[in-house]
Amino acid sequence: MSRRGLLTGGALAAGGAFAGVAGVTAIGDKQAEDRDDRLPEAVPVAAVGSTVEPFHGPRQAGVATDPQAHASFVALTLRAGIERAAAGRMLRLLTDDAARLTQGKPALADTEAELGLLPARLTVTFGFGPGLYRAAGVEDRRPASLAELPSFRIDRLQPAWSGGDLLLQICADDPITVAHAQRVLLKDSRPFATVRWVQQGFRRSPGVEPGGRTQRNLFGQLDGTANPRPGTPMDSAVWVPDGPAWLRDSTTLVVRRISMNLETWDLLGRADRELASGRRLDTGAPLTGTAEHDEPDFAATGPDGLTVIPDFSHLTRAHVTDDRLKILRRPYNYDGAPITEGHADSGLIFTSYQADISRQFLPIQRRLAERDLLNEWTTPIGSAVFAIPPGCPPGGWIGEQVLG
Amino acid sequence: MSRRGLLTGGALAAGGAFAGVAGVTAIGDKQAEDRDDRLPEAVPVAAVGSTVEPFHGPRQAGVATDPQAHASFVALTLRAGIERAAAGRMLRLLTDDAARLTQGKPALADTEAELGLLPARLTVTFGFGPGLYRAAGVEDRRPASLAELPSFRIDRLQPAWSGGDLLLQICADDPITVAHAQRVLLKDSRPFATVRWVQQGFRRSPGVEPGGRTQRNLFGQLDGTANPRPGTPMDSAVWVPDGPAWLRDSTTLVVRRISMNLETWDLLGRADRELASGRRLDTGAPLTGTAEHDEPDFAATGPDGLTVIPDFSHLTRAHVTDDRLKILRRPYNYDGAPITEGHADSGLIFTSYQADISRQFLPIQRRLAERDLLNEWTTPIGSAVFAIPPGCPPGGWIGEQVLG
Repeated sequence: MSRRGLLTGGALAAGGAFAGVAGVTAIGDKQAEDRDDRLPEAVPVAAVGSTVEPFHGPRQAGVATDPQAHASFVALTLRAGIERAAAGRMLRLLTDDAARLTQGKPALADTEAELGLLPARLTVTFGFGPGLYRAAGVEDRRPASLAELPSFRIDRLQPAWSGGDLLLQICADDPITVAHAQRVLLKDSRPFATVRWVQQGFRRSPGVEPGGRTQRNLFGQLDGTANPRPGTPMDSAVWVPDGPAWLRDSTTLVVRRISMNLETWDLLGRADRELASGRRLDTGAPLTGTAEHDEPDFAATGPDGLTVIPDFSHLTRAHVTDDRLKILRRPYNYDGAPITEGHADSGLIFTSYQADISRQFLPIQRRLAERDLLNEWTTPIGSAVFAIPPGCPPGGWIGEQVLG
Repeated sequence: MSRRGLLTGGALAAGGAFAGVAGVTAIGDKQAEDRDDRLPEAVPVAAVGSTVEPFHGPRQAGVATDPQAHASFVALTLRAGIERAAAGRMLRLLTDDAARLTQGKPALADTEAELGLLPARLTVTFGFGPGLYRAAGVEDRRPASLAELPSFRIDRLQPAWSGGDLLLQICADDPITVAHAQRVLLKDSRPFATVRWVQQGFRRSPGVEPGGRTQRNLFGQLDGTANPRPGTPMDSAVWVPDGPAWLRDSTTLVVRRISMNLETWDLLGRADRELASGRRLDTGAPLTGTAEHDEPDFAATGPDGLTVIPDFSHLTRAHVTDDRLKILRRPYNYDGAPITEGHADSGLIFTSYQADISRQFLPIQRRLAERDLLNEWTTPIGSAVFAIPPGCPPGGWIGEQVLG
């Protein structure tokens, strides 16, 4: 049975029997001996708690911001009867909370004021779901690409993880800061909205790896390598450059909850995992390169005459060359309580920011749904879309160009 | 209505009406202006990811260890038929995993080896519940004080958070490291045991506050001030100094899941919260002092003739003067998904380590259950007890003095 045949042929259908064919990769001591080469250089991290991200500006924070260690994504459902004026009052209130908390000041009437003093790069990013535009009667200000995604054959979406009228994306380098901000914002949103879902996620703690380094997901893969580079490439991919005030400097966000089946993934050998992703597990380099950010060579063939990077690989299916069509991924891991038999409830809170969902996200997602081998071990169980409206100056409020 | 009467009298029974009496404390900008005084000094944190805690030694790590930012407490139930020899095989296997992972080496046959390279002060601490001694037929080696706690009138215990034959206490400064270690250990324990409960908790991220500083819980209180000081006081309170090999250098652990009702706590004014705890919210100082570690003066009276620190305060009820009778607390916060109406699912994973549960923990717990005013806003919903057997040298395994 050929290497390629192993992955595409009957072995996959055979399920558990696959383990016996591919074998469990024995890594163990050999790699352990190499570990000193793999440790990052020492990283001085000063005053993690008191570091502040700006809140006010033409664009909202929390998108281009170097991802913080902890995130809570809180999706709200507007209560019946909340229309434009009430939604505006809610956003004024929540903007005031966010403007204070992100700068290390307690919110007005903050009942646990001491928990508000260490912002740890806290950002609060507001997202507007399609339902908010409907409720407020401002559908003429909804970005054209903002609509529920079409369903994909790989989807097993659960309502408990899908949809939402308003998103609060709360990120900080400290989990107590995130918990406190979430608490304050939920308390002040209570007259206007109920909680639809909350997804809590994590990346490496501050100081564990140098800032800006690509993170590993719980499959052990480097995740987010192909993001647009900071500066002009990211600007043109993520932010709407012009248009009316409610559109300029806005972006859109797709949140997908991707369950990762570690049990079946563990049955794969290391080489087969690398073929499935198209990249090396250790360095994240494409199978045709040696370093993470090397350009993949999709035409290169191996001794067997097959392309080195298989057509079914995640890298091939997700690859985008035009900077303007790239998406900005800012993923967080989740790890819930395992079930009785010890199987993990692990996965990824996939987030993608782009100027236009139809033009950028959907073509990639269609290619992945069609033929990404990683689909064998991953299942989308939640999906939601939000516009991220422009930022605001001091004294303004998020959403005033939409609801004002 | 006097200040004291407010807390002890009819107002408490009146429930929601209490808010109208005490009022919500307005803190806001005044305190915010003071915030620069409150920020900690800059904290250089070097190479958080590669820092290693020793695994081998006469005592297990993870008890006297400066608490890491993240913890997962995993309680297992032994499968039917697992007796002494099988339990020993399980512990040999899990000890080997722990000895490697804590030192930044992947476990044998680690299928996500890259996730094992950044230990971030990982510790894995093994605890033996009463059921393990029964199953293994070694009840003559069970520490005398290790038994299910008596029930207290404040308890609302749920089986889903209580009991357990074997505890894996997994702590690290990085949440990906914790998730990976949990995954590896659960996979290797699967032939022997099922998962009874998992409690995931957090403290401040590394670098947010200086090491050794007392943490705040989600009520905003400093939590753990009265711990025995490192050195001789901690040694005499926590570790069994002599006896047979299975007992010497062991300790015991009480894990209690304490739900904290932030909704009703928020209705209290700041002064009333301080009377309930007996300490200042900002500094953690006793109400008779100015600094966190000042000795409380329980005899001091105020202008109203009442003691400054009320008899019903948490401080009064929990206070222990004899170093040998103190308990070592190592609490973690939890913050689950809030309910639809936005009320938090927040609380504390209370952990207490002591040489003898009957002599140290129970008297404190009885006093608290009897009359601690904080009981009004907190509810124990889970409870479990474990012996923490001695450590082991290289080549040994945790539990060999008990099961070997």
